[in-house]
This record gives sequence, C-alpha cells and structure tokens, in this order.
Amino acid sequence: MAAPREPEVIRDKAAMRAWSRRRRAEGKTVAVVPTMGYLHRGHLSLVSAAAASADPVAVVVTIYVNPSQFAPTEDLATYPSDFAGDLRKLASTGVVDAVFSPADLYDRGTGRRAAASGGAVSCLEEEAGDGHETWVRVERLEKGLCGASRPVFFRGVATIVSKLFNIIEPDVAVFGKKDYQQWRVICRMVRDLDFAIEVIGSEIVRETDGLAMSSRNVHLSREEREKALSISRSLVDARTAALNGNTDCEQIKNKIVQTMTENGGQVDYVEIVEQESLVPVEKMDGPVVICVAAWFGKVRLIDNIEIDTRS
Amino acid sequence: MAAPREPEVIRDKAAMRAWSRRRRAEGKTVAVVPTMGYLHRGHLSLVSAAAASADPVAVVVTIYVNPSQFAPTEDLATYPSDFAGDLRKLASTGVVDAVFSPADLYDRGTGRRAAASGGAVSCLEEEAGDGHETWVRVERLEKGLCGASRPVFFRGVATIVSKLFNIIEPDVAVFGKKDYQQWRVICRMVRDLDFAIEVIGSEIVRETDGLAMSSRNVHLSREEREKALSISRSLVDARTAALNGNTDCEQIKNKIVQTMTENGGQVDYVEIVEQESLVPVEKMDGPVVICVAAWFGKVRLIDNIEIDTRS
Repeated sequence: MAAPREPEVIRDKAAMRAWSRRRRAEGKTVAVVPTMGYLHRGHLSLVSAAAASADPVAVVVTIYVNPSQFAPTEDLATYPSDFAGDLRKLASTGVVDAVFSPADLYDRGTGRRAAASGGAVSCLEEEAGDGHETWVRVERLEKGLCGASRPVFFRGVATIVSKLFNIIEPDVAVFGKKDYQQWRVICRMVRDLDFAIEVIGSEIVRETDGLAMSSRNVHLSREEREKALSISRSLVDARTAALNGNTDCEQIKNKIVQTMTENGGQVDYVEIVEQESLVPVEKMDGPVVICVAAWFGKVRLIDNIEIDTRS
Repeated sequence: MAAPREPEVIRDKAAMRAWSRRRRAEGKTVAVVPTMGYLHRGHLSLVSAAAASADPVAVVVTIYVNPSQFAPTEDLATYPSDFAGDLRKLASTGVVDAVFSPADLYDRGTGRRAAASGGAVSCLEEEAGDGHETWVRVERLEKGLCGASRPVFFRGVATIVSKLFNIIEPDVAVFGKKDYQQWRVICRMVRDLDFAIEVIGSEIVRETDGLAMSSRNVHLSREEREKALSISRSLVDARTAALNGNTDCEQIKNKIVQTMTENGGQVDYVEIVEQESLVPVEKMDGPVVICVAAWFGKVRLIDNIEIDTRS
C-alpha cells in the first residue's frame, strides 16, 4: 500500500482544465475515474487501474452526482454521499493527485422557457429553461437492458462524461464493468465522436459473499442483502451450466429469473447479449455477457457476468 | 494581401491531432474553419477571422462534405467540389497552415445490423449497421427554422463538429453567420458540453448585387440568380422599415414572403426570432434576426439579417 497522500480538491471547471494541462505539459498521462462518490472498494480498484495505466501518470477522480441521468421518479435525492469519507479513502490509496468535485456542471438558464426533452425527462430538465439543452446519445446501445426502464439514463451518462472529458481532457478514462452497458456506451461514444481517450473497463469487485459492490448496497436491510446474494449466485451457476454445455439462453435466463424471484427479487430484466454490441443472442456461441437488474426492497441492483464458451 | 503559402494537406485523424498538438506546444493558438469545400470569398473571410483571432496562430481549414447532415432526398451527390481550386484559394490567403481533408470520418461498421435512427434518417445511416450511432443534439435550437424541413441537419452538424473539435482540439473555431442557426447551435453546444473553444461568428459576405455567398449559388441559372436577389433586397427593405418604426413582425414577414414569391421563389420559411434563443417574436423590441429560406429553381437558398431597433 502506498503512503497516504492528500489529493488536491478542485471545484471549478477552468481550474480543473488548467491543472490537467499543466500535468500534461509536465509529460504526464492524465487518467480520470468518473464517480458519483460514496466510494467503496470497487471504485478504489478503478483508481488502481488508472494509476497503473501509464507512467508518469496524474490521476483525477471526479465526484459528482449527475442529475441528468436520474428520472424525476428516481433516487437522486437519496443518493448517498460522504465527501469527507471519500477523500480519506482516496488519500489512503496514495495515488490520487486531484479530486474534481464541482457544485453544478449544467447551465440552468433563466427558466424563461420550457426546454424540449425529446420525450425523455430527467431531474435536470425539471429546472431547465433556456439552460442546458445539448444531449449526447448512443442511439442503439442506450436502448436495451437498463435503457428500457431508465430512458434518460444513458443520455445523461454520455452527456456528463462528454462534459467531464472536455473539462479534464484526459488521456485515459476508467469505467467499471459492473455498469456494463454504461462502459460499452462510453466506448462507442469515444469511438464515434473521436475523443482522444483510451477507455479502460475494470473488473467487478465483489464482497466476500459475492454481492457486487455498489453505493446503493448501503440501503439494503440485512435480510434484503442476504436475499440479494441470489443475483451473483444465479449468475455463477449460469456460467457453470454454460461451460458444461448448456448454452440455451432461454433456459438459462428462466433459471436466473426463478432463483431471484424465489428470493423475493423483483426482476427488471435478465438478458444474454453479445459483449460488444449488446445484441441479444439465443445461443452462447461467442463472447456474451449475462446482464441482470432486480429490485430487492426499494433498491435496484445490477450485476453481470462475462462468458465465452469457446475459450 | 499576404504572400501565397501552401498549406499542409492532412488526410488522417491521428496526423491531424498530432499536428495540432505540436502547434500548441509551440505556443500557438489553433484556429479552425470547418467547411464543406467549394470555397468562395465568404469562406475566405472566415479564414481571415481565424488568422486575426490570435497571435501567434495556426489556422486549419477543414474540407469535408458531411454525409450525416444530408437527408437521403437532399443534394449530397451533387454538392459541388473543387479541391485543387480550394487549395489555390487558401494558398493565396497566405495565412492557412493546414487543410484537413479526410476521406471519411464515420465508422461504417460491418453492416450486420440496422442502426436505430430515432426517427431521423441521414445519408450516413443508409449505410449504417453496427457503425456510427452517436449523435449530438441541441434539442430546442435544432428544431425551428431550417430544422423544420431538414430534421437531420443540425444533428449531423453538431455531431461532425464535435468530431472535428475532438480531432483538431482547436482553441478557436470560426463559423459564418450566413448559417445563422448553425452558428447558434454550435455556440450552445460548446457551452453545454464544455468544449474549451471560443466560437467566432463571422459576418455574411455578399456579391456586389447583394446575394449572400454560397457554394450552392453555382447551381443557379442566370435568370434564377437575378430573381434570387429578391431575398437580400426584401431583407434590407425589412430592416429599413423596422428602423423607421414598423416593428410588427407579421406585416414584415408577409411583405418578405410576397416579394420573394412575386419573384418566383418557393418560400420555405420567413421567421423573425430572438438572436440568441431563436424564439419567434411578434414585436421587434430587442436584438432579433430575420431568417429566410426559399427555393429558386432547384436551389434552396438561406439568408438573414440582424436588426436591433434599440441601437
């Protein structure tokens, strides 16, 4: 473990960009880890990946709860935060140079006019007038999986990540594969819009009992948490079955739904899709990923497992 | 007039970015003028504005006919081009350092799958499969004026300009106010997505008879060209009327429509809107712009005039 080192806390866009340009002028690679805070070991593994991505490297962690990726019905107001705790954790890694934690990143306008929303409405747009109205959309990848029940989510993610990329101008950006669809959306966006950024997908970090780490886990009761273990258990069982020759996706999906439902989960979706395109498959004859989302109590959890039966 | 100087011709994205980063490392401001080629004096005035924007400055002109801003029914196939002539004209200015003229800027994919189009279809998407699917949209500003009859136009413009910004990483970008809505869309996009770019709007350049310069003017017959003068004439008359106290927009618009129609024009729209928001107004009591689009023969022409009755 590296010695603790206090990261510089930056609140202002222009200061952030200037900081980043100075680091690059010093010959450093700038690596960014975008987060919404309330950090856990999953995030810290992203930080490690950023620190290992180049040498010399300057690591920036952003902490910003992005309103535009939440629908008005979602949990923006209750999204957990602990800035002081986050800073301590980041300092303890010894590899974080700066924390970018702005108050607000959107121009809210004067509120004189209603903004067009293209049918999708986020927490941001409730306040919008002649304010922010530019959206980045990855039109096919944003639609399935979480996009089906969260129509503004990936639009909000792609837009805030574009903003962060333009403010920080990083060379490297690290995203967790826990948010698998998000990672693929960002990869596609970077390719399609020619961002000069290498996107690194970092493996899921799990609790010792298998639960994928998430800031939302804190909202689970002890009982819900126990039942939520059915998510990772059913995914591991599915992979075992697939590697043993059961590659029929319908059967495998039904089994996962059944396991989670028996444990009190409300399944949002269970899908088996190609890893890069996220197109659903019927047979596992290439690199696929099983993606699931389910509610346990009032908490929506997602998880996934990559499987390649050919390897 | 400066001495002729041959600009460096760059075809490749990575080479373009490297060129731009070298110029900036030398302490130069990088200024870009995005064009679709077939250059005329209007474009050259943008180049002059770019050259005057900073000192020392490196001026890049891009020449790329962007398929994604044309609908399949539009004139992509017949859009005029003259690369050798363009280069001569740019060399004659003595201030252009590089010309970025790539073969194609979109990933066309393998064509295995149909791309989602969100209801809008461009010349690009006819070829799309698992190719390009990321779009930048400025949702309110893109809708009125030219956006009403050209639903993919500003989506295509915002997206290609985002790509060019990410490839060239300019400090300054110059757009012509001839394409007034385009200029406002880009300004808003730059604000909303935090591009570190100063956007300069450059005044319309006109032929001696008043016709706004456009690459499409070459398609006008002598007779059509004569009739098309009714566009600029009606705009100048409208401004004179407004400055003389006739600020009733309905009356002014009707007069413009009448003048162009009498001259054989097929009016697409005549709108009087606020300069920054492009929201239609009924009375000219602030900075407004009259925007018109009309067909003369097979050529769609646009023009506009800014008016501020308070100044």
